[in-house]
Amino acid sequence: MDYFFHPRGVAVIGASDNMQKGGFHLIRNVLDGYGGKVYPVNPRCREILGVPCYPDIASIPDNFEVAIYFIPAQLLPDTIRQCARKGVKGIIIESAGFSEVGPEGVLLQRESVELAGSLGIRLWGPNCMGYLDAYTRNVFSFMYVDHWKTLMKPGPVSLIVQSGMLSAGFLMMILEKGGMSMSKVCSIGNKCDVHETELLEYLIADEQTGVVGCYLESVMDGRKFLDLARSTAKPIVVLKSGRSPLGSRAAMSHTASLSGSAAIYAGVFRQAGIVPAYDVHELMDYVRGFSMTPACPSQGGTAVVTFSGGAGIVTADLLYDHRLTMADLGVETMGRIQEVFPRWMKPSHPLDLWPAVEANGLEHVYLSVVESLMEDPGVDSILVETVGWGDNPTGYITRIGELKNSYGKPVVLWMVGGSEVSDGIRRAAESAGIPSFTEINRCVSFIAGVKRHFYKKRRIGLI
Amino acid sequence: MDYFFHPRGVAVIGASDNMQKGGFHLIRNVLDGYGGKVYPVNPRCREILGVPCYPDIASIPDNFEVAIYFIPAQLLPDTIRQCARKGVKGIIIESAGFSEVGPEGVLLQRESVELAGSLGIRLWGPNCMGYLDAYTRNVFSFMYVDHWKTLMKPGPVSLIVQSGMLSAGFLMMILEKGGMSMSKVCSIGNKCDVHETELLEYLIADEQTGVVGCYLESVMDGRKFLDLARSTAKPIVVLKSGRSPLGSRAAMSHTASLSGSAAIYAGVFRQAGIVPAYDVHELMDYVRGFSMTPACPSQGGTAVVTFSGGAGIVTADLLYDHRLTMADLGVETMGRIQEVFPRWMKPSHPLDLWPAVEANGLEHVYLSVVESLMEDPGVDSILVETVGWGDNPTGYITRIGELKNSYGKPVVLWMVGGSEVSDGIRRAAESAGIPSFTEINRCVSFIAGVKRHFYKKRRIGLI
Repeated sequence: MDYFFHPRGVAVIGASDNMQKGGFHLIRNVLDGYGGKVYPVNPRCREILGVPCYPDIASIPDNFEVAIYFIPAQLLPDTIRQCARKGVKGIIIESAGFSEVGPEGVLLQRESVELAGSLGIRLWGPNCMGYLDAYTRNVFSFMYVDHWKTLMKPGPVSLIVQSGMLSAGFLMMILEKGGMSMSKVCSIGNKCDVHETELLEYLIADEQTGVVGCYLESVMDGRKFLDLARSTAKPIVVLKSGRSPLGSRAAMSHTASLSGSAAIYAGVFRQAGIVPAYDVHELMDYVRGFSMTPACPSQGGTAVVTFSGGAGIVTADLLYDHRLTMADLGVETMGRIQEVFPRWMKPSHPLDLWPAVEANGLEHVYLSVVESLMEDPGVDSILVETVGWGDNPTGYITRIGELKNSYGKPVVLWMVGGSEVSDGIRRAAESAGIPSFTEINRCVSFIAGVKRHFYKKRRIGLI
Repeated sequence: MDYFFHPRGVAVIGASDNMQKGGFHLIRNVLDGYGGKVYPVNPRCREILGVPCYPDIASIPDNFEVAIYFIPAQLLPDTIRQCARKGVKGIIIESAGFSEVGPEGVLLQRESVELAGSLGIRLWGPNCMGYLDAYTRNVFSFMYVDHWKTLMKPGPVSLIVQSGMLSAGFLMMILEKGGMSMSKVCSIGNKCDVHETELLEYLIADEQTGVVGCYLESVMDGRKFLDLARSTAKPIVVLKSGRSPLGSRAAMSHTASLSGSAAIYAGVFRQAGIVPAYDVHELMDYVRGFSMTPACPSQGGTAVVTFSGGAGIVTADLLYDHRLTMADLGVETMGRIQEVFPRWMKPSHPLDLWPAVEANGLEHVYLSVVESLMEDPGVDSILVETVGWGDNPTGYITRIGELKNSYGKPVVLWMVGGSEVSDGIRRAAESAGIPSFTEINRCVSFIAGVKRHFYKKRRIGLI
């Protein structure tokens, strides 16, 4: 697999000098990031973006390891043969028109896989968006993502995405948030040869990957996929679509993949320690959250600090729904919290800090309360609910992020209010390594996922 | 109740000229919107914002109908007596320090209710944020909401919110979205006298209210509340907190209200045709959605149009989870849809429009497909999943909103991508009267709620 991510020489078959075409974005992306030799191929161009363009593969003067394929589907078998003569090890096929379009496409795809196999060439795709790697800066994709050079930050999150359009969408979400740092985003499309299980194995071994998120419509080599997930301490979050009779019928016509039943997937995923996701942003929220949550104590309950008694009660209900317990706060902790509360008000859990905030200021109160909770052995995780206040300070969020890291207790943040204020808080949280979610329920279900993950991995001795 | 919303004369007890105090925001809000006579009361001021200020209630030269109370709790009984001499009909008590702070507060609150009752005065609150009305422009609240004069748009949504901080948060969400138009937002706090059931009755009769959203920790006069909800065609959405043992314990210490069990509320709410919500943004999403959804056919299934096969499959799974059916599209509909598809591609449902979009452009394809679906009698609702494309046109969204209105079929929108693009689409959707949600699951659960609502109201003959 490694030559896909660190190829010596890349040909772009179907590069274009027409800015309206995907073939232009593709060659531009490759040239902007990849450090090795690039060979655009297009009989209608002499050069593209200052790089010599070749009329065909045979004219390329050197051998090269990877070809990116972006021309009509039916030319693939011939291209494979030509690539073989240039020592190509892998072809990333981003064109559509294969098994997803009907019987003819199925035949073409099968023929291509057999041919490539016989020539020792691996195929990635087809019908996909390629991949990008924030470390090597390889953007081997035709998708048009403006400003990726400034937005793309290296970090622990890798994705395996079966749907091309969703991988593009995921990417925009990652890039725009400015907070999720990523390693490799792999769009695998029809996965005629390279598939999720092989990629999962690669990413588990990859030092630059700390969390893997998958959007899958089917799982190839399912037993190995589960064994891999079970064997690693890295969180594996999977949105498996086609769980239901309705969804599985829809999946059939999409990537022509047969998918299993909902109950089977749910059960085996849980056994394998996979964190399930059921919606698109949820998948992204979970991988983002896990990338910021390196540890969780082995026992205790969740502490809730809030600016609103009402939000605290909603939180308690949702903790109950997720079978989580609220932390039993120690006498000493309560005593320390009382110090920042007005004397007439006895704190109770969930901790509605508002009366204390009015008396002693938001930053001071939130910080001292969170610090007391960090020191309480009965607390294994903290849900911080906050709100804009005064000139909207964010220093306390930064400091809570530091406390999170030194005590090794997960913290999640929820806030309410207009976007002007909450965007600032959210950005501060991201920089401080605190995941923030729009709904209280997402915070709670993330905590549930984190606790299950660390419990499972600890039980089988992986951490 | 009506004098609370259309009072002849309002005294603001505890008005302040100190911009750092709630008493200043309160008097400023009242003066900025309310059209009648306003009497600030504060022994330390001669005038506030150009209006004469009185040292005490007795000095006010006229009678007045409503007093807004924003001074320490223990002065309430005396204030009630003074108000009685001025013909006051209702007092909105925004100060805290009553039943929520312990036995002394409970006594003070009880004493005040009895006294007011004997003098024919109704009490609203205490421990609340008052109310605002986007039609009369009455903002009888100490909360500081900048720019409400430009942001507040009259419309069908009214809210009854037990938690003060949540009502402030809700309001910011409403105002900043720029899309939710509202009637009355009522923060009822400890609801010592005026409570949710009385307000619900008022709002059901109120011509300016089309949808009522409630955040409640307990329900007073529960039977009547349910009867009222059952008897109206207006959607009533309720987030009832304290559903669980954990939450109900938390509620006890918050507004000192006893709350019922989760199962009881769930069952009776459903029977009464109440739409349940379980989270904070969910409540707002539902009322916003209902305010834009005036009709739903009596039979059919949901049609799904998407830019991503993957998103379509996730949608099918979620429809199944919510026991919804996917529309069985007619032969004629499929024929018309085929016209915008590439010839090699047979459309199937969920309708992945991407190949068609690439061939014939996003606006044209989305519009003709949605129009075909509107005409199909097997379709009762449409989930439109879209994405940024080209120079991000939004004209098709406006047109889909018109189709929604003329065919009377609910439409919801989901989109993926960076906020730069999706914010534009979201704004267009809001203006077009199409609710848009961040998660596919929220779209699907909203459709489920809409179908149940119209089914129920139709069955009992209310529509």
